[in-house]
Amino acid sequence: MRLIRFSHSGTTRVGRLDGDVVVDLSVFADAGDSMRALLDAAAGDLSVLASVDGEHFALSDVHLEAPITDPQKFLAIGMNYEAHADEARAAGVPVPDSQLWFNKQVSCISGPTDPIVMPAVSDMLDYEAELGYVIGKTCRHVARADAFSVIAGYLVVNDVSVRDWQMRSQTMTLGKSFDTHGPIGPWITTPDEIDDPEKLEIKLWVDGEIRQNARTDDLIYKIADQIAYLSTVMTLYPGDVIATGTPSGVGAATRTWLKKGQTVKVAIEGLGEIENVIVGEE
Amino acid sequence: MRLIRFSHSGTTRVGRLDGDVVVDLSVFADAGDSMRALLDAAAGDLSVLASVDGEHFALSDVHLEAPITDPQKFLAIGMNYEAHADEARAAGVPVPDSQLWFNKQVSCISGPTDPIVMPAVSDMLDYEAELGYVIGKTCRHVARADAFSVIAGYLVVNDVSVRDWQMRSQTMTLGKSFDTHGPIGPWITTPDEIDDPEKLEIKLWVDGEIRQNARTDDLIYKIADQIAYLSTVMTLYPGDVIATGTPSGVGAATRTWLKKGQTVKVAIEGLGEIENVIVGEE
Repeated sequence: MRLIRFSHSGTTRVGRLDGDVVVDLSVFADAGDSMRALLDAAAGDLSVLASVDGEHFALSDVHLEAPITDPQKFLAIGMNYEAHADEARAAGVPVPDSQLWFNKQVSCISGPTDPIVMPAVSDMLDYEAELGYVIGKTCRHVARADAFSVIAGYLVVNDVSVRDWQMRSQTMTLGKSFDTHGPIGPWITTPDEIDDPEKLEIKLWVDGEIRQNARTDDLIYKIADQIAYLSTVMTLYPGDVIATGTPSGVGAATRTWLKKGQTVKVAIEGLGEIENVIVGEE
Repeated sequence: MRLIRFSHSGTTRVGRLDGDVVVDLSVFADAGDSMRALLDAAAGDLSVLASVDGEHFALSDVHLEAPITDPQKFLAIGMNYEAHADEARAAGVPVPDSQLWFNKQVSCISGPTDPIVMPAVSDMLDYEAELGYVIGKTCRHVARADAFSVIAGYLVVNDVSVRDWQMRSQTMTLGKSFDTHGPIGPWITTPDEIDDPEKLEIKLWVDGEIRQNARTDDLIYKIADQIAYLSTVMTLYPGDVIATGTPSGVGAATRTWLKKGQTVKVAIEGLGEIENVIVGEE
């Protein structure tokens, strides 16, 4: 099942994508345009959403928005691909010996085809293709063996980064959090459609030139490690978005930055693709 | 004006505290128990909330909850008092040369008298008394001169920290984010009641022994600096909670950790006090 948020005639709603048919789910539990409310209402059993019916639209008649804009948390792990850790070491960036978590602000989330704004205060704009997952159940102290049971689905993330702002502070927070620097989508794919989320091709192109090309089986800390570690600390809630780190090939490794007018595309096998153009700040 | 969240007969609602009288504001714009919704509905002009009437309760008949539990963001700045930066340097912790921002997870927010849970995975539990403020207007690129116009009010924050988890990662994220480690309150005091938020006494006691005793005029990066810097990066929304850093006297400076059964009280001049007991993890 593919869960989406879509706009039609000026209104945004949650929905389901059945082939090329968009099914409006906004009346389910009065979810409206809130994916968090929809996941919360499904209470960990998403199968109920597969059978709900609603108004139908053609995919070509709607605009796909970020599948979720109101998570309580948007967390990301740094230095989590072996080859990316190698390129970071080569660039003089220390690699930690435990899971390195930071927040992207929820306010940076944007849609699968929305523009990425290059801020006026930097030209060190970079991309990071990442596999993301969305929590489906309220949970704490999740054992590794149970980790996959709390996942509602997977999606494509571009962890857009402003490298000078990121490096200025050990916490990286602000350089990861400029408005529009969290494109996600194009939809949330439920786990039943993915054989193994840790065996997916992940690729990123800038203007058609491939820059990142890896498989998610190169993760240092696996998804189950992540959920066990995070939930030792905090309660995870339906809608929380977690990004699993980026493979090698980021612009920072060669100090090649994104430029206005360029298009960045990220594709993950089985999850679809997001494509965002770089624009200047007004 | 003091804005609160309170529970009575099993229901939590937003309200206003007039002396010892609690005025229920939950029907205003259907805010219910959401302070974010209440601030959003006031649209930057909180004076409308001063004149709304609603059901009355005696303060002694209600339980005060965290004044906001659903901000989009909960940000905090590190190393922001001169004397605290000095004690950090003495302990070998590097002090940054720009604003050091990190997130406390929204899920760690708890109430002004709720217990602080010592996690089973650490005994390096520490306190940090902090002045916090809450954003009242959606804003971006706020000039320093306009910064105070976007603040809805002030509150007391205890930035509870698990030091070994904090130091394990450069981003500090997880050590700042254990469930219950964000006690805030007891209410949001609107700016008209505070002469100067950067000239307030701030104090913290453990079991009645004073451990932190400072004034908010010792901030390295002032509130206006913070809002200008943060809003260069991101849109701030009504309800966002921002903590301004802690003065000297934290337990880490002498490696004295909080113990089960102890009570931590934080008081800020004009803003009230919060008092939380340390309990073990179940």
